[in-house]
Amino acid sequence: MARPTTPLLSRDRIVRAALDQLDRTGALALPRLAKDLGVSTSSLYHHVKGGREEVVEGVRGLLSAEGMVTERVPGEDWARFVDRWASRYRATYAAHPAVVPLLTAQTVTHPAALASYEALADVLHEAGFADDDLLHAVTALDDLVLGSALDAGAPGQVWADSPDPGSRLARAVRATRAQPGDRSERAFRLGLESLLVGLERLRTHP
Amino acid sequence: MARPTTPLLSRDRIVRAALDQLDRTGALALPRLAKDLGVSTSSLYHHVKGGREEVVEGVRGLLSAEGMVTERVPGEDWARFVDRWASRYRATYAAHPAVVPLLTAQTVTHPAALASYEALADVLHEAGFADDDLLHAVTALDDLVLGSALDAGAPGQVWADSPDPGSRLARAVRATRAQPGDRSERAFRLGLESLLVGLERLRTHP
Repeated sequence: MARPTTPLLSRDRIVRAALDQLDRTGALALPRLAKDLGVSTSSLYHHVKGGREEVVEGVRGLLSAEGMVTERVPGEDWARFVDRWASRYRATYAAHPAVVPLLTAQTVTHPAALASYEALADVLHEAGFADDDLLHAVTALDDLVLGSALDAGAPGQVWADSPDPGSRLARAVRATRAQPGDRSERAFRLGLESLLVGLERLRTHP
Repeated sequence: MARPTTPLLSRDRIVRAALDQLDRTGALALPRLAKDLGVSTSSLYHHVKGGREEVVEGVRGLLSAEGMVTERVPGEDWARFVDRWASRYRATYAAHPAVVPLLTAQTVTHPAALASYEALADVLHEAGFADDDLLHAVTALDDLVLGSALDAGAPGQVWADSPDPGSRLARAVRATRAQPGDRSERAFRLGLESLLVGLERLRTHP
């Protein structure tokens, strides 16, 4: 079979292959990506002149466009919007935990991701968050979401069995194992609901 | 200069070199680690028979022993303890963000890290957290801390300038830039204080 020629290559195809590589191997290496696509590294750079950073931003854009909330539901209050925003965001990256550390290492420039943050900022502003707190509230939500997306990729056993099975940690681990549903997602829900209760107090008007 | 012979190598030296490699390059590669140490990969494996996972757990142990809280301060209430626990934990990993995604990918087995979680579980239990919620509260704190440690490694400009400088996000970014102190740490404080307010409602006794 002939090697695909450059015209078959596209930015979109490169970005999708990068996400696939991250999901399979946990890392992103452009020379290996070119190999996966059956092209030379220089052909790859012809489509993504910004190199690795542009590929990572493309992955952020792809996942943001598919998974992140930008639209408000009429009549929805700020806390319900933020819950939906953070839950969709977490679900998106929990499916691709290897992407997370790449995202935080570079400036958000993709319009789809920026649009989602703009929508969140608008909702928080209208809810009475002052400009001095607003970005910190956004960042705290980001921290919880991205930490939880990493946790979603954790092994089934997060903590080794305690030498003392009667220890409080050991008891809590057993109690949690007996619960239905996904451990990491349940923890995220408890954390998000608690964070929303605490953020409520920052509103300068009701 | 003669290549150091195997006896000079130790588990501790390997773990410290691994942390140094992570800080410098953002990744951990055992063949390169052996090269950095001037030894063969097989000499390296002689000291860390569990390979990469054992090295990562060694890094967790080194940082936990240096940075994580296990001791309670007499008279300290649960929220003050948790604040101290999470703040020290964050400060430790904010200085080494590349370690974060490796930590969440494997079971916590190092005794120094486990001791810190045991202490947190004991405090939450005494404060009235039920076994069914306790581990989720611990995990939510973990998520916030590790997300923030990644954020501490973010570039100075987290979001690209908005095409509309009057947008709410753009205003909030400017307000935040005008503040003293570290952006990422301020956001973590706001998030942690808010999370503690919300966790308070889970206590089954005062």
